[in-house]
Amino acid sequence: MKLMVVGLQGQGKTTLLAALKGEPPPRDEEITGVHIDEWLLSDPSKGGSLGFLRVKNVGPDVYFSTYDLAGQPEYYVIHQCFLTPNTLYMVVWDLTLGEEGIDQLEPWLSNIHARAPDSMVILVGTHLDALSLQKRKDLENINSKILKQYITKKSKGFPQIISVHYVSCTTMVNIDDLKKDIYQRAISVT
Amino acid sequence: MKLMVVGLQGQGKTTLLAALKGEPPPRDEEITGVHIDEWLLSDPSKGGSLGFLRVKNVGPDVYFSTYDLAGQPEYYVIHQCFLTPNTLYMVVWDLTLGEEGIDQLEPWLSNIHARAPDSMVILVGTHLDALSLQKRKDLENINSKILKQYITKKSKGFPQIISVHYVSCTTMVNIDDLKKDIYQRAISVT
Ligand SMILES: Nc1nc2c(ncn2[C@@H]2O[C@H](COP(=O)(O)OP(=O)(O)O)[C@@H](O)[C@H]2O)c(=O)[nH]1
Ligand SMILES: Nc1nc2c(ncn2[C@@H]2O[C@H](COP(=O)(O)OP(=O)(O)O)[C@@H](O)[C@H]2O)c(=O)[nH]1
Ligand SMILES: [Mg+2]
Ligand SMILES: [Mg+2]
Repeated sequence: MKLMVVGLQGQGKTTLLAALKGEPPPRDEEITGVHIDEWLLSDPSKGGSLGFLRVKNVGPDVYFSTYDLAGQPEYYVIHQCFLTPNTLYMVVWDLTLGEEGIDQLEPWLSNIHARAPDSMVILVGTHLDALSLQKRKDLENINSKILKQYITKKSKGFPQIISVHYVSCTTMVNIDDLKKDIYQRAISVT
Repeated sequence: MKLMVVGLQGQGKTTLLAALKGEPPPRDEEITGVHIDEWLLSDPSKGGSLGFLRVKNVGPDVYFSTYDLAGQPEYYVIHQCFLTPNTLYMVVWDLTLGEEGIDQLEPWLSNIHARAPDSMVILVGTHLDALSLQKRKDLENINSKILKQYITKKSKGFPQIISVHYVSCTTMVNIDDLKKDIYQRAISVT
């Protein structure tokens, strides 16, 4: 299955992919174009226990081709070729941008909708660790802004947003939840 | 037009692409998967002069999508999807490997032939600067080995090798000639 990561430059796309794959964070280098790679995701749910019996993970492995689309405007043309159906999209932005960050998601969402209207989209806000206490409280507003602007307005030309995650690729907070979500979505369609 | 760069890991593929594009050499980092980028190549022939008149470059610009296919065996499966017709291939190897380097080209050439038999292939030997004086003399043997093994045996299932270049991405020796060659080939088919 294709996992496509989009968003403006510097939002944490490449770092997020590395965090999910369990790889070291990439060096701060501007990567251009598109970087396609593979990711074999084993069932990330922690095996539960039944009495003395430890239950092992039972879900099948999922094979992803991951597409890291550099967010520089010069590359939008290349990107168009990669927006395809049957793809799980992660639209990534930096939470420290506040409400402005939400507005910036619009072109990505409408492009995905135009190319592949039935796609599943996961919104991922990064830099959770870098939010001030005040900004952390504002996450409620962020939530309702997303809801108002992209989810209930779905008729207006946005794809189906299946979930929203707030993560830190530095402290790894909520990365596991995101991973489980990706896994479940992939399993549900393959 | 697509410009596909293939060859084993560590042969200088990524460095060569940067040299051609006039970008700084990449840091020594193992890049996995496929990195797709753009390259706008202006006519690299130096404008001649007609009396007092400097003749400007007259050829049109050529737009390439460059495909840097990381050479790790794990990625051969991904690569298969990228070997397509209407593509200019550069098969890259490290000249310091001597005759052994020539043998290693075989799988790349037969894969290209199997997928896209009418492709144009340019062979590029890198690390010219790192050759000892003795090895530099051996280049004659390298030439005839290439000829015997891949060019006159074309019927045996290799694609059309249109030229062979020996370059250094460190001193930039022969990079301009390679660039001109790429340009001319692209012009001739577009
Ligand atoms: N503090 C913090 N920094 C992050 C986080 N995610 C990414 N970064 C940093 O944000 C910068 C841009 O990240 P990068 O992955 O290159 O962004 P991309 O251009 O969208 O691929 C880098 O310096 C990362 O280290 C995060 O969750 N928290
Ligand atoms: N001396 C010398 N070193 C080179 C040349 N081309 C590449 N290298 C070095 O060879 C190593 C592998 O190059 P890289 O481009 O990463 O190879 P790739 O794995 O095929 O992409 C790097 O350390 C480069 O600096 C060259 O022409 N001369
Ligand atoms: Mg990036
Ligand atoms: Mg490389």
